Amino acid sequence: MKLTILGSSSALPTSGRYPSAHVLSVHERLFLIDCGEGTQMQLRRCKIKLGKINNIFISHLHGDHIFGLYGLLSTFSLMGRENPLNLYAPENYHIMLNSHLNDFDIDLNFQIDFKPLKGKNPIQIYEDKYITVTSFPLKHRIEAYGFLFREKPAERNIIRERITEYDIPVAKIPAIKQGSDFVTTDGRIIKNSDLTLDPEKPVSYAYCSDTAYFRRLAGFVKNVDLLYHEATFDKSMTDLAKQTFHSTTTDAAKTAMEASAKALIIGHFSSRYNDVYTLVDEAKEIFPSTIPAIDGATYDIRELIRADQTKE
Amino acid sequence: MKLTILGSSSALPTSGRYPSAHVLSVHERLFLIDCGEGTQMQLRRCKIKLGKINNIFISHLHGDHIFGLYGLLSTFSLMGRENPLNLYAPENYHIMLNSHLNDFDIDLNFQIDFKPLKGKNPIQIYEDKYITVTSFPLKHRIEAYGFLFREKPAERNIIRERITEYDIPVAKIPAIKQGSDFVTTDGRIIKNSDLTLDPEKPVSYAYCSDTAYFRRLAGFVKNVDLLYHEATFDKSMTDLAKQTFHSTTTDAAKTAMEASAKALIIGHFSSRYNDVYTLVDEAKEIFPSTIPAIDGATYDIRELIRADQTKE
Repeated sequence: MKLTILGSSSALPTSGRYPSAHVLSVHERLFLIDCGEGTQMQLRRCKIKLGKINNIFISHLHGDHIFGLYGLLSTFSLMGRENPLNLYAPENYHIMLNSHLNDFDIDLNFQIDFKPLKGKNPIQIYEDKYITVTSFPLKHRIEAYGFLFREKPAERNIIRERITEYDIPVAKIPAIKQGSDFVTTDGRIIKNSDLTLDPEKPVSYAYCSDTAYFRRLAGFVKNVDLLYHEATFDKSMTDLAKQTFHSTTTDAAKTAMEASAKALIIGHFSSRYNDVYTLVDEAKEIFPSTIPAIDGATYDIRELIRADQTKE
Repeated sequence: MKLTILGSSSALPTSGRYPSAHVLSVHERLFLIDCGEGTQMQLRRCKIKLGKINNIFISHLHGDHIFGLYGLLSTFSLMGRENPLNLYAPENYHIMLNSHLNDFDIDLNFQIDFKPLKGKNPIQIYEDKYITVTSFPLKHRIEAYGFLFREKPAERNIIRERITEYDIPVAKIPAIKQGSDFVTTDGRIIKNSDLTLDPEKPVSYAYCSDTAYFRRLAGFVKNVDLLYHEATFDKSMTDLAKQTFHSTTTDAAKTAMEASAKALIIGHFSSRYNDVYTLVDEAKEIFPSTIPAIDGATYDIRELIRADQTKE
């Protein structure tokens, strides 16, 4: 599970920070989360293959999270895309989307399967062989949702030598990978633990932007490995954060702590901050394993957590 | 009159070319022509002051000419803009604009004065102390307009020494600058040509994108100094150009020649061309004074023409 940050700014982009967009890569499948203005340029800059994006998740309908969508959809179409695209967004966007595409004379040559986000509780909205995705409500000025991406437990790793040693037929291997013991032709039971090694632990990633602090949020992302949480403001700006339904560094760190996250990545920085490391330092006071979202950077989530545990 | 190219790509941006947007600077006033995705980032990159843009001209409603507009309007608002903004765009955009701003929860703290573009003939749509702007119809898949920016003739330059020599009262100076002769207290007529020097010739700039070739166009931009004309395709691609209502290098050069333009700048290049100088070379076969639109470059139109005349 690799995360690439395409944009880390809040509503006002700066010369070094584009508006919100994250790409999560899981076994060569790419999941695009939010799509601020310039996302398609950032995708090109990061040499990310547009054709591998089949699922786009839009947290809410503020411009800095969606103004890059129409350009990206047009580009998909001009590049000859035919695969349908799953688009997850707040329910009320469905009619708008069709009307905007019509207004801008966009005739896509692929289908958009619109998947409405809704509900006051977490809902599983996606599942494939490797992961599940759950949406959950955030607390913002308008309807907004977060997303939790969880790898499924991988199959156990069979020890090749044992296959010859016990003459295991190919047909039995799937069950052994799932944890079954093996019975030899002469009736001996070989325990699974003698045949297989533990797989890598599944990892998880949660995206929480834009949101004010609220206590239930930590429950929605409980035990997540990497938590992305917006930190638009520094800790002195609690009032403005509350007023605009955004978070401070303290809010982000508190949620990470309450969720027992393994690591926290903060972003959606206000344009007033040139140096985001002062924001990271503030968050670290409460939640030490904090890093900043940097445009163009890619993080291997498994390695990030491993490095962090080694450090401890 | 200085022209800055913010984007020179056609619908599909490349790593080096953003979608269409030009900034024309006339006596510290900035005129933004088209506003493709990423325009606000390009403005920042070119260190152009956003607050000096009071007039935006949208040629037509295709995404690569307008998808940067909502981001820019939001940014104006977030930066505290209070000055009204004149927005020139095809008439049918007015309702869409209000509906889109509403859809995306954009509450601007300044007023947009919407100026509808329409008509089958050139219409003067703007005038100030220094320039006039005329819109004229283009020939595209949807309603589209070009723009002609003309400097007004400057006042004649009065020769300072003559003021003392003939004891010219301050009150007479404006008339002399307009070309009047001066009558001394003893009744002598001093010819204007003895009192003043020729001002610099006014220059003009026309923006023609997107459009197929059509004969009337040259008439609309007759004798323009710098003609920007789209050249999406090379000359071998006449069929695709016709089919999509775009131009080839030949079309652009032909219009420049028929209009007796002084110089031609081509752009809106298809993403299939890495090297746009081969396109320039094609245009030069018909119209030698051709240059390419390069993202981030600024051209002083007066100097460009002067340099070109020196060359001859």
